[in-house]
Amino acid sequence: MNTNAKLPEQTSPSTSPKSALLTESEMALFVDYYQLTMGQADFKSQNDAVITANYYVRKIPQGEYLVAAGLEQVIHCILNLRFTDDTLNWLAERGELSEDYLESLKDFRFDGSIYAVPEGTIVFPNEPIINVTGRSRDVQVFETYLLCVMNFQTLIATKASRIVRAARGKPVFDFGARRAHGRDAGILAARASFIGGASGTSLVLAGRYFNIPYVGTMAHKFVMERPTEVDAFRDYANAFPHNTTLLIDTYDTLEGAKNACIVAHEMEARGARLKAVRLDSGDLLSLSKEVRRILHAERLNYVQIIASHDLDEFEIDNLLKEDSPIDGFGVGTRLATGANFNSRTGEGGPSALGGVFKSVERDGIPVGKQSLDEPDKATVPGRKQIYRQTDSNGHYCKDCVMHWNEPISGGEPLLISIVKDGNLVYNFPNLTAIQARAKTELMKLDESHKVLIDAKPYPVEINSRLKTE
Amino acid sequence: MNTNAKLPEQTSPSTSPKSALLTESEMALFVDYYQLTMGQADFKSQNDAVITANYYVRKIPQGEYLVAAGLEQVIHCILNLRFTDDTLNWLAERGELSEDYLESLKDFRFDGSIYAVPEGTIVFPNEPIINVTGRSRDVQVFETYLLCVMNFQTLIATKASRIVRAARGKPVFDFGARRAHGRDAGILAARASFIGGASGTSLVLAGRYFNIPYVGTMAHKFVMERPTEVDAFRDYANAFPHNTTLLIDTYDTLEGAKNACIVAHEMEARGARLKAVRLDSGDLLSLSKEVRRILHAERLNYVQIIASHDLDEFEIDNLLKEDSPIDGFGVGTRLATGANFNSRTGEGGPSALGGVFKSVERDGIPVGKQSLDEPDKATVPGRKQIYRQTDSNGHYCKDCVMHWNEPISGGEPLLISIVKDGNLVYNFPNLTAIQARAKTELMKLDESHKVLIDAKPYPVEINSRLKTE
Repeated sequence: MNTNAKLPEQTSPSTSPKSALLTESEMALFVDYYQLTMGQADFKSQNDAVITANYYVRKIPQGEYLVAAGLEQVIHCILNLRFTDDTLNWLAERGELSEDYLESLKDFRFDGSIYAVPEGTIVFPNEPIINVTGRSRDVQVFETYLLCVMNFQTLIATKASRIVRAARGKPVFDFGARRAHGRDAGILAARASFIGGASGTSLVLAGRYFNIPYVGTMAHKFVMERPTEVDAFRDYANAFPHNTTLLIDTYDTLEGAKNACIVAHEMEARGARLKAVRLDSGDLLSLSKEVRRILHAERLNYVQIIASHDLDEFEIDNLLKEDSPIDGFGVGTRLATGANFNSRTGEGGPSALGGVFKSVERDGIPVGKQSLDEPDKATVPGRKQIYRQTDSNGHYCKDCVMHWNEPISGGEPLLISIVKDGNLVYNFPNLTAIQARAKTELMKLDESHKVLIDAKPYPVEINSRLKTE
Repeated sequence: MNTNAKLPEQTSPSTSPKSALLTESEMALFVDYYQLTMGQADFKSQNDAVITANYYVRKIPQGEYLVAAGLEQVIHCILNLRFTDDTLNWLAERGELSEDYLESLKDFRFDGSIYAVPEGTIVFPNEPIINVTGRSRDVQVFETYLLCVMNFQTLIATKASRIVRAARGKPVFDFGARRAHGRDAGILAARASFIGGASGTSLVLAGRYFNIPYVGTMAHKFVMERPTEVDAFRDYANAFPHNTTLLIDTYDTLEGAKNACIVAHEMEARGARLKAVRLDSGDLLSLSKEVRRILHAERLNYVQIIASHDLDEFEIDNLLKEDSPIDGFGVGTRLATGANFNSRTGEGGPSALGGVFKSVERDGIPVGKQSLDEPDKATVPGRKQIYRQTDSNGHYCKDCVMHWNEPISGGEPLLISIVKDGNLVYNFPNLTAIQARAKTELMKLDESHKVLIDAKPYPVEINSRLKTE
């Protein structure tokens, strides 16, 4: 492999810890090294081909559809990516990339065109989600970033839609930042969860960045730091007279529920109402029923029961099938990591979406990878449009993937113009609009394609002209 | 739940896409909202307790040990975390948190003390990895960040150590950025992989940030953009006369190997040598043997075979058990996401480390969560030190977790002083030193605790005084 010939020297022990916060000017280095070595080989061999590359997903980890998400961050990267002097000097010091090639990167501006399905669109395996046309050397510069951001957000938006479906209209909140794969993952998981139908997140920064509603309850720590559980509940209710949720499982959930009732009655005497109690351990089904019984006996039916604790679509589906009176769900690890794991069967796989970004056209000529050794990895050549067909009930019934220039007989074209000749020609919708789009689209998708287990694949017809080219 | 009373307004459609790049001044908002609502309740009820909280892991997703990683980023956050006017004004506009509480955050400086095991240390379930003592209200401010960064890096360093072990001395490279959960995950996965024993990464930015060697080969795209595979190989070899690895599976791996031989002989005529060929699809075991045979027949035994394609510790172990002649491995998705998945059995779980950060002492008095409903979630009270005992062969034989002040009879104390009264008292070792530490520690751990499947739990004795407190 090309190793950077002059290895960066290891520094001495340091008293200044590194943050690894990414700055905008460093985005250009969020790149797999082969994209730069290929760039240099392209430069030396004067390869100025214009290509079209497709981002698509061959196989969906769970279920039979995807909720596309991440486009806004991808476009931000593509339009703002620059190689600063600082970056280029650093690369030059490493020694392997040539001065003339690095000099050529100084003027990098993406001046090509991008079509994509809007965020929140439902898509299926092998459908082009993003279609980038530009100089080959330019397009490969942001491949790693595009894949990383699209793969992750689409994974999470899809997972969220499954969890929200299982919750049957009861709100779902992202509680996953502490188990997310780094800070970026925490923030982007909150964004993508919201797109997939979550009602909010626990992560304040996601409120700041993306105007996502953020929510909070209390931790066991708060209870443990008071002489008694009732003391803790009182302290919290005093701080938030009209907006209190009490965590009742620190010591004994049913005792906790009784203590919550004491404080709820004290709040009533002040003209306020306890909003909710929260369960975070144990057998949520039996505990939620017992707690509802205790609240009912105390005439506190208005107090909601919120639950968290290793939840996912399978657990929530099971709880509600068994008539659990839980009113809302906080979902952490398995949402924010897009857990590819069936908690009923124990079967699992990598928690990642294996989307790829592949050349499909070069200088107007369709190209593809044949992959004799692994037919599943073959690429469908040619620049494409997806046409989605709707039946007389307004349900989606078939997608046709056609060559871009092919005359079509019907259906809605899904890929729309985002960037033209390097200029943004698209208004990014706000997240509420994106969430609404995903919701509407999912309603048009037949149940059989959405059930949590053994869903039926949606019919996607790859036009025969594409296959033979 | 506490919802931020005044929901942030959704913006109009925007022509300025958002990056979600985190700036240092925004770190303070990478917080689950309940940490701020509890903070306000603490403020109102004048809770100025000094607590000790432990970061520890109850259950390891795969195997029986962990390689601790992430401390440097955690300490960076704790020592640099500030609430700027901008942040506080934004919170004030949301309406729920009170002015006097927000005013009190202005002066936030962590002035407590931290003990931790150095990065690269091998640790076991329920052992304290980080021990933070400080004002309760301050300690909870960075809980989300600490958990997120420690859980992820420790997960990946551990996964890397398993993969490196399976590779039996052959180099392993992190190729996972494109499947990582966001940019941060890509960068931190490269860092943690290196700690766990990887030889390098494909991600250039990890070279820039952390001086990690980065490597590159070529993509199928590069081959597809030339009239023939041999043309592509020549273009690359011309650009990197002394450092060329050729990807040979774009069309037909064995034909690709023969084409690589043609170019290798051309390179020999120029006094150079082809470094390696790379396989990225198909049955790696049979293909690697065939390719080695082809290289041998062409007297090109010096050319290495590098492989990638859905690899993990189980696949690599299997390949090398079957005498595959692969010389090095690029591991992507399953390394950078810490896949909790046994590719032999199909069994899996969430790809996350469920480490927690729990109060164990308040104002000098041990505290704990009893959790009658779920005994596994109980906390061992009291501030602790780990003493690691070594047998006469220099192998680790037992850990004793003791109360901090308890006189001990032997063993090496693992938690060392990192921050004292808010000041850093520790020199962060460079990554090579951290990697070496992990390697040395793993050598001292008996095989039985390291085998990939059905490893034996390492004996950790929780001192009885802690349990009864």
